[in-house]
Amino acid sequence: MEGKMKVAVMLGIGRMGFEERDIPKVKDDEVLVKLEYVGICGSDLHYYESGAIGNFIVKPPFVLGHEPGGTVVEVGKNVTHLKVGDRVALEPGKTCGHCEFCKTGRYNLCPDVEFFATPPVDGVFQEYVAHEAGLCFKLPENVSTMEGALIEPLAVGFHAAMQGGARAGQTAVVMGAGCIGLVSMMALKAMGVSRVYVVDIMEKRLEKALELGADGVINGSKADAVEEVMKLTEGKGCDLAIETAGTQITTVQTIHMTKKGATIVLVGYSKSGEMTLPMSMVLDKELTLKSIFRYRHIYPMAIDAVASGRVNLKGIVTNTFSLDEIQEAMDYSVNNKADVVKAVIRI
Amino acid sequence: MEGKMKVAVMLGIGRMGFEERDIPKVKDDEVLVKLEYVGICGSDLHYYESGAIGNFIVKPPFVLGHEPGGTVVEVGKNVTHLKVGDRVALEPGKTCGHCEFCKTGRYNLCPDVEFFATPPVDGVFQEYVAHEAGLCFKLPENVSTMEGALIEPLAVGFHAAMQGGARAGQTAVVMGAGCIGLVSMMALKAMGVSRVYVVDIMEKRLEKALELGADGVINGSKADAVEEVMKLTEGKGCDLAIETAGTQITTVQTIHMTKKGATIVLVGYSKSGEMTLPMSMVLDKELTLKSIFRYRHIYPMAIDAVASGRVNLKGIVTNTFSLDEIQEAMDYSVNNKADVVKAVIRI
Amino acid sequence: MEGKMKVAVMLGIGRMGFEERDIPKVKDDEVLVKLEYVGICGSDLHYYESGAIGNFIVKPPFVLGHEPGGTVVEVGKNVTHLKVGDRVALEPGKTCGHCEFCKTGRYNLCPDVEFFATPPVDGVFQEYVAHEAGLCFKLPENVSTMEGALIEPLAVGFHAAMQGGARAGQTAVVMGAGCIGLVSMMALKAMGVSRVYVVDIMEKRLEKALELGADGVINGSKADAVEEVMKLTEGKGCDLAIETAGTQITTVQTIHMTKKGATIVLVGYSKSGEMTLPMSMVLDKELTLKSIFRYRHIYPMAIDAVASGRVNLKGIVTNTFSLDEIQEAMDYSVNNKADVVKAVIRI
Amino acid sequence: MEGKMKVAVMLGIGRMGFEERDIPKVKDDEVLVKLEYVGICGSDLHYYESGAIGNFIVKPPFVLGHEPGGTVVEVGKNVTHLKVGDRVALEPGKTCGHCEFCKTGRYNLCPDVEFFATPPVDGVFQEYVAHEAGLCFKLPENVSTMEGALIEPLAVGFHAAMQGGARAGQTAVVMGAGCIGLVSMMALKAMGVSRVYVVDIMEKRLEKALELGADGVINGSKADAVEEVMKLTEGKGCDLAIETAGTQITTVQTIHMTKKGATIVLVGYSKSGEMTLPMSMVLDKELTLKSIFRYRHIYPMAIDAVASGRVNLKGIVTNTFSLDEIQEAMDYSVNNKADVVKAVIRI
Repeated sequence: MEGKMKVAVMLGIGRMGFEERDIPKVKDDEVLVKLEYVGICGSDLHYYESGAIGNFIVKPPFVLGHEPGGTVVEVGKNVTHLKVGDRVALEPGKTCGHCEFCKTGRYNLCPDVEFFATPPVDGVFQEYVAHEAGLCFKLPENVSTMEGALIEPLAVGFHAAMQGGARAGQTAVVMGAGCIGLVSMMALKAMGVSRVYVVDIMEKRLEKALELGADGVINGSKADAVEEVMKLTEGKGCDLAIETAGTQITTVQTIHMTKKGATIVLVGYSKSGEMTLPMSMVLDKELTLKSIFRYRHIYPMAIDAVASGRVNLKGIVTNTFSLDEIQEAMDYSVNNKADVVKAVIRI
Repeated sequence: MEGKMKVAVMLGIGRMGFEERDIPKVKDDEVLVKLEYVGICGSDLHYYESGAIGNFIVKPPFVLGHEPGGTVVEVGKNVTHLKVGDRVALEPGKTCGHCEFCKTGRYNLCPDVEFFATPPVDGVFQEYVAHEAGLCFKLPENVSTMEGALIEPLAVGFHAAMQGGARAGQTAVVMGAGCIGLVSMMALKAMGVSRVYVVDIMEKRLEKALELGADGVINGSKADAVEEVMKLTEGKGCDLAIETAGTQITTVQTIHMTKKGATIVLVGYSKSGEMTLPMSMVLDKELTLKSIFRYRHIYPMAIDAVASGRVNLKGIVTNTFSLDEIQEAMDYSVNNKADVVKAVIRI
Repeated sequence: MEGKMKVAVMLGIGRMGFEERDIPKVKDDEVLVKLEYVGICGSDLHYYESGAIGNFIVKPPFVLGHEPGGTVVEVGKNVTHLKVGDRVALEPGKTCGHCEFCKTGRYNLCPDVEFFATPPVDGVFQEYVAHEAGLCFKLPENVSTMEGALIEPLAVGFHAAMQGGARAGQTAVVMGAGCIGLVSMMALKAMGVSRVYVVDIMEKRLEKALELGADGVINGSKADAVEEVMKLTEGKGCDLAIETAGTQITTVQTIHMTKKGATIVLVGYSKSGEMTLPMSMVLDKELTLKSIFRYRHIYPMAIDAVASGRVNLKGIVTNTFSLDEIQEAMDYSVNNKADVVKAVIRI
Repeated sequence: MEGKMKVAVMLGIGRMGFEERDIPKVKDDEVLVKLEYVGICGSDLHYYESGAIGNFIVKPPFVLGHEPGGTVVEVGKNVTHLKVGDRVALEPGKTCGHCEFCKTGRYNLCPDVEFFATPPVDGVFQEYVAHEAGLCFKLPENVSTMEGALIEPLAVGFHAAMQGGARAGQTAVVMGAGCIGLVSMMALKAMGVSRVYVVDIMEKRLEKALELGADGVINGSKADAVEEVMKLTEGKGCDLAIETAGTQITTVQTIHMTKKGATIVLVGYSKSGEMTLPMSMVLDKELTLKSIFRYRHIYPMAIDAVASGRVNLKGIVTNTFSLDEIQEAMDYSVNNKADVVKAVIRI
């Protein structure tokens, strides 16, 4: 496919613009995807607001966006499992396939990963992308490309739930009811966890959590989350906690509210990078602290969970913008963090 | 509690009767349960028809029945987690707590287990039983004592699904749509397995499977089950198979229909005890054959799954009899195996 | 067996004395053991110096000591696996056998555990003890009762190594070369770990580590432990770290020196109970932080490792005292922490 | 590197010959290796004797040999971890890196694997080979290229031991003392298994097993292997069995000799492909039957085990031939199966 496409670029901190670029050529093992929806992630906003995350520094013009869904419009000659017209969710990270991590199935830790919208690799707030076919997952008929875009954050939730050893019969607590907290809650429910409680300090988000399937919510600004969890579990504590709020307070709470032998999955990054934690309690309770970095081989599971109706993925979208409104989309998301659970760009 | 109770006893092959016995005394760590429902299991029928299972030989008068649900009427002095009036499901096997198997959490393998209705230990087709309180699991309000009785077979299904590593995103096949096949299917669904197909040769049972939540069924007398599974999985094969039919044919089929690296869980016993299997194919595909013996620490999970509505346990009951009708119940169950998925005795 | 025995008791902080008590009676499932060696653990010293560990407060007279080895002199009537004359290692914690933790094989987390020398349960600095036979493990001919006593700390090392998923092919680092650091190192080697490096700041201890089988040592007061580990692993980092020093500095170092996806096992308690840790690095590397509380079903494995010569358990003993010298033993151990790796009481 | 090389080819059943071929060109991510030793595997002999294994049919001229060790003589431009002069062991299977199996770390199951000496992919009984650098593992100074060649069968042994969950404290039995039986035994010992017994019917092989580190051997033609194992384990049975003999008799024996809850790893292929097994006993004991197909990410672990002296890999070599003697090497190996544990070709 020849021609030009519109690309939204970050021109500097707080400043978006547009460029016209060539539609990419597909390689033999790639497909060309016409993008239809791309979600806005917290990391996109972070780059937009501050120009960097850790050592990853934006050099404008830079393309943000790594949560894409779209339709295949061209197929590389080695590709057999996709055809033109297939609607797909795109897993954003291309890995080497040969390092120790790739070989052992932990490809999310591949040091040579090229991940959309992680400098210097451009993202996908644009009309087309050519991507490794093996990373493009066909969507069933009853899953939309908007949901396809949101498979990316849902994959984070499922990876957290999987790493935590979530299973039927457990009681789990999710700290934080932002996008990642909500998808974690939905992943836990889809995996059969018996009771999932969500803690946040914003009433609106807690209502959303209930609407999407939480078994109960706790407003941490009004009640002691630890005490409430103890009451809800008849003094036993929960079997599993997923921490997505990224604060020391909530992380300490997970250590207090979990049962002996329990697992805590750390997902949220704190601002300072450090936390002071009651490690002697961790030992006394023989707790396991797992952490997650993105996800690995989760897309099929996540798509299945949406297709079967176990996860109401549409329900997390609070705001939709067109590609032309990208500046507004970014600004609105930055300025209304309490209200925007998830914004998506329709392309 | 003092007094006498009615006990249904097996007097000989094909012959039931009644005795009056003392209501048992509770020990300090026991509770006395007034039984309300006891399910009839295939093993009860096997003892009834043939007088033995392997080396376990019935010496009449013998009490059958090991799937009990009831209400606590007396509480031993060391018991703190139950009180009079609590409705409970009773796990039927008392174990030593000190052997290698108990110590490592695999108490179902304890060589000193005392299991209801496994000679010489009497079962519970009777009005009352005194049982270790730790083996009596309180039922939530929305779970009936009839469902409580059926937690026992459901526990077998969950143990099979757990041992098989069932999880979201998988495609599983259950061979056999009898009671254990159906509870295995429901356990798989409750654990988030994406697609569960059930194979049987009786249309009625397959209808039941669909009614209870199977994603599809295959009548093995009309179609080649292996071919059908291959079609349904686009040639990939299934990730997990649970074999409950106990025949060589269906076991061989699981080896053919599973994907490389898959797990097959063997649950059904064959008549001869032996099977001829294509073991080179097992190696070529690097399959894992797990097997299960009863279950371990599954009751809370199974009760949760029923309480949350994930498992329609009532739906497996096809026949109900009173304790007085025990002879009829046994005879009808033996003579109508195709129709009776699950019969229960109401006490 | 009738009669009196000598018991060493803690009379107050820093003050030991003796009492005469009745030789205990054996219950049906117990054996009476004539103690021959009892190790002095850091926790014994802590109680001796400060009168308490957390909420566990010594009420004198109190018997310290929980690392016993001895010979069976009387056997309860239900005991079949031991006979008079058998030399045994005694696992010090008696558990309920019925709680959620016991039932799932994690009996070390049993809330009703009765553990030698943990107030209010007396320890075993005395001549005889009656103990649950299932917790008394017969020693092979080539394992002495002094080694039997030391199975207890070795079990901590094995539990740490097991929880860390230690296996052939790995590179592991142990922080701290005290008793627990050394037994952890030896457990790692016995489990086939390819390279085990030990970090400490005392040269004497590092020499001991090398003598007992460490593949290399790092003096953290002279070199940067993280840099050294990176050099030793060609920049890759280690697969597994076991932290026994209980300091924030060494714990932070384990986070820096481990490979992505690695496991850190926390064993050492810090003085304040809290640590400030670089949790964002934990997430970036998708690390797992395990912790351990005592051990579970480790004794047979640990005894085997000593019997086969894989673990040189005698080698950790630096000081031996008689029971009569208990005051001196405690004082010397408290005042010469740098020199005393392990002191034992010969009874 | 330009030039010609000598290649040994199979010209037909029982007939070897030589060809001159171009020395292969290295691609960017490959290295060129001058081969020094190539082991002769049972599968090489099988192709040589019968022209096929299952659906894999030799079309002459075909190059056998898939157990290579050698020295790097040229390095592709993307290769950073190897340099000219490095001695290496070559893992023989190149996989796609992108399929479900590769992505989940189970690359040995990749359907697109290209494996040396598995038709139509040529093997390496030749002077040079160009191979993916990621599959070439540098040997430490104290590991020879002959040992490097033998890492391949050792990897099978380690994969079997790993899949079996081998660990310190266990008692394991290996059925069969051929090459794979012996490397399995050595892998088990290297992983810390406490007691490994080996069963065979040839006295010479059993002597070899003892020489290489088995804790005991059983001559199955003189004693009942099941009874002997029961005696050796005081009636408990073994924790783990690895079946390498590939006969129904020995496989049935593993089912009888293992403890409840144990794992049996099936490695040996039977002639007919089928086996009749006591599956009811498998269920009664809740056994797990694992199987293995080649190995995955085992080379580093296996090389480490040799370098550290835990595995005496040289000890399995009974016969050495030069490349010119290839016909004799094959014929001798075929005609003296009882005597030849392992033959290698020196190139």
